[in-house]
Order: sequence, then C-alpha cells, then structure tokens
Amino acid sequence: MIEYYDISGCYILRPWAMSIWENMQTFFDAEIKKMKVKNCYFPLFVSPGVLQKEKDHIEGFAPEVAWVTKSGESDLEVPIAIRPTSETVMYPYYSKWIRGHRDLPLKLNQWCNVVRWEFSNPTPFIRSREFLWQEGHTAFATKEEADTEVLQILELYRRIYEEFLAIPVTKGRKSELEKFAGGLYTTSVEAFIPNTGRGIQGATSHCLGQNFAKMFEINFENEKGEKSMVWQNSWAYSTRTIGVMVMVHGDNKGLVLPPKVAALQVIVIPVPYKDADTQGIFDACAATVAILSDAGIRAEADLRENYSPGWKYSNWEMKGVPLRIEIGPRDLANNQVRAVRRDNGEKADISRVFLVEQVKGMLEKIQQNLFDVAKRKRDACIEVVKTWDEFIKALGQKKLILAPWCDEEEVEKDVKARTKGEMGAAKSLCTPFEQPELPEGTKCFASGKPATKWTYWGRSY
Amino acid sequence: MIEYYDISGCYILRPWAMSIWENMQTFFDAEIKKMKVKNCYFPLFVSPGVLQKEKDHIEGFAPEVAWVTKSGESDLEVPIAIRPTSETVMYPYYSKWIRGHRDLPLKLNQWCNVVRWEFSNPTPFIRSREFLWQEGHTAFATKEEADTEVLQILELYRRIYEEFLAIPVTKGRKSELEKFAGGLYTTSVEAFIPNTGRGIQGATSHCLGQNFAKMFEINFENEKGEKSMVWQNSWAYSTRTIGVMVMVHGDNKGLVLPPKVAALQVIVIPVPYKDADTQGIFDACAATVAILSDAGIRAEADLRENYSPGWKYSNWEMKGVPLRIEIGPRDLANNQVRAVRRDNGEKADISRVFLVEQVKGMLEKIQQNLFDVAKRKRDACIEVVKTWDEFIKALGQKKLILAPWCDEEEVEKDVKARTKGEMGAAKSLCTPFEQPELPEGTKCFASGKPATKWTYWGRSY
Repeated sequence: MIEYYDISGCYILRPWAMSIWENMQTFFDAEIKKMKVKNCYFPLFVSPGVLQKEKDHIEGFAPEVAWVTKSGESDLEVPIAIRPTSETVMYPYYSKWIRGHRDLPLKLNQWCNVVRWEFSNPTPFIRSREFLWQEGHTAFATKEEADTEVLQILELYRRIYEEFLAIPVTKGRKSELEKFAGGLYTTSVEAFIPNTGRGIQGATSHCLGQNFAKMFEINFENEKGEKSMVWQNSWAYSTRTIGVMVMVHGDNKGLVLPPKVAALQVIVIPVPYKDADTQGIFDACAATVAILSDAGIRAEADLRENYSPGWKYSNWEMKGVPLRIEIGPRDLANNQVRAVRRDNGEKADISRVFLVEQVKGMLEKIQQNLFDVAKRKRDACIEVVKTWDEFIKALGQKKLILAPWCDEEEVEKDVKARTKGEMGAAKSLCTPFEQPELPEGTKCFASGKPATKWTYWGRSY
Repeated sequence: MIEYYDISGCYILRPWAMSIWENMQTFFDAEIKKMKVKNCYFPLFVSPGVLQKEKDHIEGFAPEVAWVTKSGESDLEVPIAIRPTSETVMYPYYSKWIRGHRDLPLKLNQWCNVVRWEFSNPTPFIRSREFLWQEGHTAFATKEEADTEVLQILELYRRIYEEFLAIPVTKGRKSELEKFAGGLYTTSVEAFIPNTGRGIQGATSHCLGQNFAKMFEINFENEKGEKSMVWQNSWAYSTRTIGVMVMVHGDNKGLVLPPKVAALQVIVIPVPYKDADTQGIFDACAATVAILSDAGIRAEADLRENYSPGWKYSNWEMKGVPLRIEIGPRDLANNQVRAVRRDNGEKADISRVFLVEQVKGMLEKIQQNLFDVAKRKRDACIEVVKTWDEFIKALGQKKLILAPWCDEEEVEKDVKARTKGEMGAAKSLCTPFEQPELPEGTKCFASGKPATKWTYWGRSY
C-alpha cells in the first residue's frame, strides 16, 4: 500500500492504495457533479497577507504551515505558504466572482494535495505531512441552503465509509472546541478503531457561516437590490479514509480489502499436481479471468511458475484480495472452481456455468459481512456512562464513551486537562444526530451541571 | 478559463478549463491503464541529496527549484525542494522495488502538480510556476521495450492533440541541446501557433537510457542470473495543452472549443418575441436539453430572463461553445430548431425528429473542421529553406522552418547565438520522424557541412 519516504511524515502511495482512492473518487466525483458542483484548481501557494486574514483560522493552522523562502539560489522577497487547506486561497476570488444573487450558489471542488507540517507522530494515511484530498467550497444566498448542503455532503461521506469501505460511522456535530478553525459549526462522520480504542474523525462538512465572507468581503446584491453577505460551506475527505480501512479490517494475515474499493477483487490461482493437465489448468485460469473481467469484475490470475500455490495464497491474503479462486485437476474435471473468501475463510465450489452470478453474489456478501462484523465490534465498544468515575473506568478500557454533557467549552477543556497523559487526553468526538432519550434532570458526566445532549467521548487519532 | 492569482506566475484553473483537462485525462488514463501502467502518488517534496544525484538533470532544473526552509516559526534542519519533476523523487524506490527480471517492467504514472519557479514571462497555461500534469515513469529489462513504449506514448500524445484538441502536431526527436536534462533522447509532439509564428512543445516522451539507473543503482538479476541495469522512460503532458488550444483556435470573438473537450457542447437559447408562446419556447428549450443530455451530449439551456438573445449569443460565442441552438416562435411552429456553428457561423434548421443524429453529426463536423483549418494554417506557415539567408528571411516572416541540418550541437548553439534578440533566439523544434527525401550532397543551412536530416526550426514558447 505505502512505502516510507526519506522525508519524515511523507509517504508514497503505491498503486494498491491509489486504486482504492480512485474507486472512491469515481463515486464521489459523480455524486457532487449531480449536485452541480464543478471541479477547478487553485494554486498550491498562498501569500502571507491572505493566509492571515481570518484570525481564528490562521491560529488553527499557523504552526503547521510550510514556507517557501527561496527559489534556485535567490531569496524570495516575501515568503510564500503552502496551502494547509484552501479557504484563504479561494475566497478572495469568490469575493470577485460573486456580485449578484444570480452568481449564487457558487459550488467548486478541487482534488489536490495539501501540506500540514505536523511534528506529532506521523502515521501513514492517518497523519502525514502531505496528503491528498478533495475540498469543496460553496457559497449560498441563505443559511438554509448552506445547512442543507452540509448534510447532503455528510451523507455522501457516510456512504463512502459504510458502502465502499464497509466501516460504520456516526454522523454528528463537533463541539465548539473541536470545530473547524474559523467556521460556524462542523459536522463529521466518526469511526472507531476497536483494537486501539481510539476514535477517528472520518471526514468533515463545515458550515462556515459568514465569518469568512466578512473577512474576505464576499457580498452580493440580493433580489431586493440590497447588499447581503454569502453563507459558506467547506467539506473534505482525504486519503486518511484508506488508513481507517486498514485499521478496521486488517487481521493477523494482513490487509482485508472491501470488494467495492479493492484494486483486485478476485485472484485466480492454478493448483496443478504432478500428473495433472497443467496446461488445461492454466487455460482454465485465464478463461476464468476473461469471463470475470468481461462482467466488470476486477480479476487477475497469478500464473507465476516459480511460486507454490500455498505461497501465493498467503501472498494474496496478505494483500487483502477479497476472493481467491483455485483451479486444480478435480475442478477442471468437474467444470468448477473453488472460491475462498478472505474475510472469513469460507469455501465454495462453483460451477463454471454460474461463475459470474456466484462470484458477484460472494463479493456482495463479503462487502456486507465486513460491514456487519465491523459494526458488531464497534458497537461492542460503546459504553454509556453517567458519572466521572464511570467515564475514567471506560476510558481505561478503551471504550467509545457515550455520555450526557452540558456542552460547555470550559468543561471540555477541563476534561482534557484532567485526562492528560501518555496516551493523550480524552476529548469529545461528536454529538450524534441520532440522540438517545435524555431524561429530564440528567447531569453532565463531567461538570454535574444539567446535561443538554449525549456526546461521544474518547481518545482519538 | 483562468483567473490571475495574487502570486505572480500562478493561475486559477476555473471549471471551464478544468473540464477540458478532465476530458483529456479520462481518455489518457484509460489508454495507459490498457498498457498496464498503474497510478500512484509520490510526495511533493524532495530532499536535496537525492535531487542533486543526477548531475545533468539538476543542472537543468536547479535555477527553478522552490525551497521550503521553514515550518510554522521554525527553520527546517535541511531545506527541502518542491518537485519540478519526479525522476529523483521516484527512482531511489525503483532501486528498492526492482530486484529480479520478474519485477519488470515497472510502469507507474501520477497525476499531480509540479513547481518550476521560472522568472521569464509567466503566461497562463503555457509557462506557469505551478502546473498540473501526468508523469509516467517506466523501467524495462531491455532498450527495445523502452524504445517501443516511448513511441506508444507519443502516439497517445498525438491523439490528444489531433483527436481531442483538433491541433495538428509533428512527431519527432529533439536535438541534443533541447533533449531532457539527464536523458538519452527525447521525442515530442510539436505544435505551431500561426498568429505568433512560434513553435510550441506539446508533450514529451523521453527515453532516459541507463543514466538514472546508474546514478540510482536500479539493477536487476536477469534471466541468466546476471546483474543488469534497467532501461527507463519518462513522459508527460501538462495543462499547457489547454493553452495551445486557446491560441490555435481562438478568434476575434473569443474562445473556440473543440466539441470533444468542451465542458458544454451545445447551448440552447430561447428567442421569444412579443406575442409568442414564451412558455412553449422555454419548454421546448428544456426538452431539447433533456433529449441531448440523454444521448450523452453535454448541453444546457440559458433561460435567464434578464439578458437578450443577442447578448447570450455573444456571451456563449466568447466562451467557445461549439454549437448554439436557437428556438423561436417559427421553430416551435415548425417543430424544428436552428443550429449555429461556432467555428464557421454556418446555420441549419433541424427537425426535432432528427435532433440527436443531426447534432451529433454537426459536432463531428465542427471537430473535423477545426482540425482541417488549423492544419491548413499551420501548413501554410511551413517554409523549406536551404541557406542561412533564406533561414533568416523565413524567421523574420515568422515561419515554421524546415531545413537540412548537420545535427551538431555546436552548430545549434551557433544558430542560437546568431539569432539572439528581443524576440528570443531561434532553435531546433524537432527532427520529424517523417523525413522528406534528402538528396545526396545537401548542405546544412547553418554550417555548410553535409546535412544528415531535415529539422524544424523557429522561435518557440
């Protein structure tokens, strides 16, 4: 999937990872185009004046900004920043392009790289100094339209995780402390890694309100001829998605790839024996690949002669290919193939007459099973707590903690301060949109004040 | 298409340009995947040690390299370069990944941004400090395989120009002076801009030979168990393609987009009159768009009520939409539409019964006509010269000069020195693969030595 690079915090995305990215991209790009979002490309570089225009925003990003100060042997007159995100890159031009209500909504997206020079624990996919993402930036005449789009995009992110990556996520709203720097409110899909007991922010859809519009003077003349300020959103998902997938589905044999995103869905392996019709077996493998490929299934045969079938099994299991098809003398004789699932090891003999339907069916079952298993494991980690003592105990057990909260920023700061330590502090993950009932009189687990909502807490990536 | 950016030499690619890029990308990406090239993504950053490994290469790029020296408030221990191209980024890992002949060929490609901090005349699309491109990097066991691929890729580049952008190009080989820094030989497709009388390198497919393999120690055990060095290629085309298209087809009304790459192929405009059935006309416009869209034609209607039909005509002509469809009362009554071509202004009344076939036919004709006209204009600029005086005269007339040449590096340097001036020096553009007959005894136009080939010369971008 990746290769470590000689600059710390940078990684090489090898084709096996890249094709997962491309499979998600094809889906998402088509969906946002249906929503009339158009792709564009803004520069990598930001001038310091513009970058610093929105105060909260730059405070959030300043420590991680990489600066270009030289070209060739010459010093630049002014250092130039590399985009950590593109709000400040784009919005001066939104101000220029948006004049009247007929220019709205403006909906742009770009697929690009961004740089955040983080010093804490670089981790492949999850926290890297450069990563790939899409960033959508939209402007509307009304808050209602912006609110609606925030949730439409969040639903697409849920589908990427649940339908493509087979990972259950929770849709919700971030706390004031955890929201996007400079925005009005942030929604996210949150995943959880049972093995490490940490939450992970999967993707975010922000309503920026009018904060950036004010700073960048993005005004328009509304239908009544009055000067108005736009309402803006920004939303992004990144190659982090692939890292979440690796952590959620991987097992002690290696990767496990959900069929919908796998570069290769089926690997066909010949299993010849001493006296068998080796050529016949190899031909059957090639024919199987041809039939599956014609049906739109991503299939290849591993016909290398210098490796044993057993070695090949392990190799492709390690790489996570969802379905293995073995063809040996008995299969050849019976006009069948043997199919072995990567997710649970189940085996089935499939008549070659029904090859395509059966393989398609198995791939769907694998996709569904990966999701079901991941959801069962995630749900088993959820712990409902009501008091600080229960909270601390659940945190020690690496649970995904659901707790009644007063939703006060100072209280979250206090929770962070009180849970600081080697493992990192606990923080709020999200306030889920689907709220369990909150009986009147319920107290905040941390402050004892009246609770206003249920919120997920835990340590996170 | 573009917007100027507040950092000199950087430009914003607006959706109108981006969709042209995406239309070419869809074609090229599918074609290279058929050739078993796989997409990947390598980091934006290069450490100085690696960048400087191939001496000729770094000499070629050093003056244009942008350097990151700071992150947040801290100075980096070592400055880090931003890729001007990725040979030195990738090849240390090729060395790691390639061990035996079974690891070959290795064929990778990435779609990414690169940075060349040029100081001479930044021009949108043509010469910008950051641009988008694809870069393919392949390694083979034999020179023959590398040679073959160089030409396969060059043919794809020809198709992008001729079939998609409707621009005639010449396939050929670059001179020693003009070849890729550090490579063995460079092939290119060369276009010509009649208005300015300048040649322009359209895209390049390089055989790197074994130069980089030597520097980066990319060796493998061949089938006989001997240690061998790989043969490498690299090849790229960039957003410059869009700039060439703008210059070749644009006219005094604005852009002219070839249908195959146009974001919008057909714009439908209602032409209501005072007493006409306005609603009926608007409905017919919407229905026309629906029918064309269903047939896979990129069509939209401009139903804005506050602009006159005439204003809309000019507006969409300026934007270069290949075909305009007008629907007025007479068209409504006759169950027809009026179609007007952007390329030559030709008008036709089309029965709505045959709408899809007729529109498809017209789009094909426009595509072909744009190519034919561009080729006629380009061909009219070609001047065959045999002596220095003829050369200088043709250069003054901004011709695309075809001249017999001795193919010596010193002679090209001399030509450059002797033609230096405000307009820039003349240089060799390419030695076309299709060579006219070269009668025995023909002399080089510049040196008077025996000529070995016909070569195109001129000023260039």
